Amino acid sequence: MTDRLAQLRDDLERAFLRDFHQVATIGATDRGGVERQAATDADRQTRDWFSAFARARGWAVEVDGIGNLFATLEFVPGAPAILSGSHLDSQPRGGRFDGAYGVLAALHAAAELERRVAEGELTPRYNLVVVDWFNEEGSRFPPSIMGSSVYAGLLDREQILGVRDLAGTTVRDALEAIGYLGTSGGPGELAGYAEVHIEQGRILEREGIALGAVDSSWYTQKIEIDVIGEQSHTGATAMADRRDALVGAARVTLLVRDICNEYPAESLVSSVGQITVEPNSPIVVNSRVHLVADLRANDPAIVRSARDALMARFQQVADEERLEIVARDFDIRPNRYYPQEGVALQQRVADRLGLSIRRMQTMAGHDSVAMNTITPSVMMFVPSVDGVSHCEREFTSDGDLVNGLIALTEVIAELLTGVLDGVAYPGVPSTSTNESRLR
Amino acid sequence: MTDRLAQLRDDLERAFLRDFHQVATIGATDRGGVERQAATDADRQTRDWFSAFARARGWAVEVDGIGNLFATLEFVPGAPAILSGSHLDSQPRGGRFDGAYGVLAALHAAAELERRVAEGELTPRYNLVVVDWFNEEGSRFPPSIMGSSVYAGLLDREQILGVRDLAGTTVRDALEAIGYLGTSGGPGELAGYAEVHIEQGRILEREGIALGAVDSSWYTQKIEIDVIGEQSHTGATAMADRRDALVGAARVTLLVRDICNEYPAESLVSSVGQITVEPNSPIVVNSRVHLVADLRANDPAIVRSARDALMARFQQVADEERLEIVARDFDIRPNRYYPQEGVALQQRVADRLGLSIRRMQTMAGHDSVAMNTITPSVMMFVPSVDGVSHCEREFTSDGDLVNGLIALTEVIAELLTGVLDGVAYPGVPSTSTNESRLR
Repeated sequence: MTDRLAQLRDDLERAFLRDFHQVATIGATDRGGVERQAATDADRQTRDWFSAFARARGWAVEVDGIGNLFATLEFVPGAPAILSGSHLDSQPRGGRFDGAYGVLAALHAAAELERRVAEGELTPRYNLVVVDWFNEEGSRFPPSIMGSSVYAGLLDREQILGVRDLAGTTVRDALEAIGYLGTSGGPGELAGYAEVHIEQGRILEREGIALGAVDSSWYTQKIEIDVIGEQSHTGATAMADRRDALVGAARVTLLVRDICNEYPAESLVSSVGQITVEPNSPIVVNSRVHLVADLRANDPAIVRSARDALMARFQQVADEERLEIVARDFDIRPNRYYPQEGVALQQRVADRLGLSIRRMQTMAGHDSVAMNTITPSVMMFVPSVDGVSHCEREFTSDGDLVNGLIALTEVIAELLTGVLDGVAYPGVPSTSTNESRLR
Repeated sequence: MTDRLAQLRDDLERAFLRDFHQVATIGATDRGGVERQAATDADRQTRDWFSAFARARGWAVEVDGIGNLFATLEFVPGAPAILSGSHLDSQPRGGRFDGAYGVLAALHAAAELERRVAEGELTPRYNLVVVDWFNEEGSRFPPSIMGSSVYAGLLDREQILGVRDLAGTTVRDALEAIGYLGTSGGPGELAGYAEVHIEQGRILEREGIALGAVDSSWYTQKIEIDVIGEQSHTGATAMADRRDALVGAARVTLLVRDICNEYPAESLVSSVGQITVEPNSPIVVNSRVHLVADLRANDPAIVRSARDALMARFQQVADEERLEIVARDFDIRPNRYYPQEGVALQQRVADRLGLSIRRMQTMAGHDSVAMNTITPSVMMFVPSVDGVSHCEREFTSDGDLVNGLIALTEVIAELLTGVLDGVAYPGVPSTSTNESRLR
C-alpha cells in the first residue's frame, strides 16, 4: 500500500462508512436489507439525505423532469461536466449496497476532490456533478434504468411520466407526491461518466480480486406474456371444461426456466419474475395471468434463438390448454461496450493504488449502460459475497467498499483532467433494437 | 301446467323478476356479471336493498355477530322457525345468479306465504325467517361458507372475526365499516332450512330437467402451500445458484392439475386458485409463493389418495429445486347427506306442479351444507347454462328461475306445516374431520 493510499484511507474511510451505514437505516428491513422502491417515502428520505449532504457543502442541488437528483461542484464556470453516481432506490426487500454504494461513494469522492482543487493539488478542466438516478430498479414502475435512460434520450419523458404502478399511480403523481418532480434539464454538456457498483456475481470474490473493470454488458430482453382463459368454479367445473390461465402460466414459467438447459451452461439466464393473477380467489379457476420473463446472454444469437423457441412453445401451450397466449418483446438492450480507454484508466489507477483488478462483463443492467450511449463511461465493480443481490443478504465488506471508493476518487480525478477526451463511445442505438412497450 | 301453477306464476313472476334484475345492477360489471365481495360497499348495497324489502312488509330485520342478515315473519309467537335463503355476496367478477337467486326467491316466497297465511289458505306451525348469509364465497376472507358455518357452530365466531383479507383488514373491521356487524343471535330453535341455487353444472341443462333435488355433497379439502426459495437478481444470478420459489410454485400448480388424470374421468377435480408471490418484481427471482389448492371428489378415498400423492411430490419438487415447501390441509369437508324426506318432499312438490325433477349431488359447497348439520335441510337446483359459474357469463333463464321460485314456495309451505318434523340429519361432524387452519 502506498503512503498516499494510506493517507486517503484515513481521510475518507471513517466519514464514508459512517454515512453509508446511516443511509442503510432508511427503509431498513428486519433482515439487514432495505425497501426503498422508487418514489416511495423511503426513497424520498434518502433523497433528502443526499440533498442535505450537498447543500451543507454549498453544492447546487437540482432535480430534472424525471426525478433525477444532481449536485454540482462548479470548478470551471461554463465548462462541461464529469458525472458520477448510481441510484438510491432498491428492490422490494432488496439489499443496502445495490445502487446506494455508488451514490455515497461519488458524494465522498466529490468532497475529497473539492478539497484537492481548493488546495491546488488538482487542476480540473471540467465541473463535477454527483447524481442519484431515478428508479434504476424498475420494480414499482417498469422499465428499470428509467431516470438515466430518459436523461440519455433513450426513453421519452412524457410517455414515462404516464407509466403506472400496480396500484394505478403514475410516475408523475408519485414523484410529485414526494416532492421530487423537478424542472431542471440536468447538466448540459458532458465530458464523461463514472460509476462504482457491487458485482452481483461471484467472480471477484472467487478470484480474490479487489476491483472489476467492466468492458461490456450482456444482451438482454424481456417478454411480456398474457395468458387468457375462462373464469369458472374450482369445485363445480368438470376438468375437461376448464380453461385455466394459471395452468398455462405455470407451463410458461417452466418453459422460460428450462430453455437455459438447451445452451452451454450459464451462457443464458432466464426467468419469470413478475406474475399478476385474476381473479385470484381460492375457489375460482383463474381467467387471466400476466407474466414478465427476463432473458440475458452475452451472445445476442442465444437470446434470439431462445426467444423464438419460447414463442413457438407458448403457442403450443395455448393450443393444448385451450387458452389464448399473447407474448410481446420489450425492453431489448443490445450488448454495450465501454470505451477501452476507460478500462485502461481503471487498470492504471488500480496499479497505482496497489489494488488487484480484472476485466469483466456485467449481466445486470446499470445506469452506466444508458450513460455510455451519450458520453464515455467508466464502470467499476467491487466484490459481492456469494454474488447475491436484489435480496436482504446482499453483502460487501467495509474494506472492499473503501477500495472501490478510493479507486473511484482517482478515476474521477483523471476524468476531470480530460483523459477520456475524444474517445469513442457507442452512441444512441437505433430505435429498432431498443423499442420499449410499456404497460 | 295446473291452474294453480298458472295463477301463482302470474302473481309472482313479474314482481320477482323485476326485483331480481334490479339487484343484479348492484356491483354490475361491464360483461353482465357482478362484483360484490363480502363486506364491500356493493355487498352493503344489496343488504340495504334486502332490509328495505323486509321493512316495507313489516318484517323484523336483525343482524347477528358475524353479519348474517335475517328478516322474520312471525306467524306463531314463540314457535321455532323455518329458515330459507342463500347469499348476496359474489366472487370477484362473478355471476349475478350464484347466491342472489336463492335470497330473492326466499324473499318472494315469504311474501306469497304471508299472503296465504293472512287469507287462511295456510296454517303454519312455525315462523319463517329469510336469510342473507355473510361471505359464502370466501374470496376476500377465507374460508367460504363463513356466515352459515359460524351460525351452525362449525367455526368459532371470535376467531373468524379476526380473519384478514390480503390488504390486512379484519372481518370485524370490514363488517363494522359497512354497518353490518350486529349483536343479535339470529333465530333460536329451528325446524328446517330450504335453499334454491343454480346448479353450477351441466346435468339439468343436458337432460332438459327443471329441478334438481340435492341428496348429498362431495368430499372436499383445501391445501395451503408455502414455497420458500431465495430472492436474487434475475440478470446477475447464475442459473445453478437460483432457488426460485415461482418455479416451485409452477410445478406445484401443474402437479395439482395433473393428479386428476390418475383417477377415473371427472371423479376428482383439483386446481390452484390463489397464488401470492413475493417480491414479484420483473428482475427479481422470487423468494416466496403462497398457493391454495382445492380438491373435490364424491369418494373421500380419492381425495385422500390424491392428497397423499401430492404431499410426496411437493417434497420431491422441494428437493430437486433446493426449495422449502410447507403444505397443510385445511377446510376439510366430509360428504354430507341431506334428509331423504326432504328429497321426497321436493319430488312430491315437483309432481304436483308438473315440473320434471331428478336427484343429484353438489360438487360446490353451499350454506345448506352447513345448515344441514343443525336442522333438516332441503337443497334444490335449477339449470345453469353450460354449467358455468363464478364468472360473468353465468346464466339461467327467467323461466327456470321462476320454476325454482314456485317450487321453493311450495317446499317452504310444507315445511311450515311440519312435514320434516323429527327427521334425522347429519348433526355436527367431529372436529377431526372439520379442522380449519385459517390464514
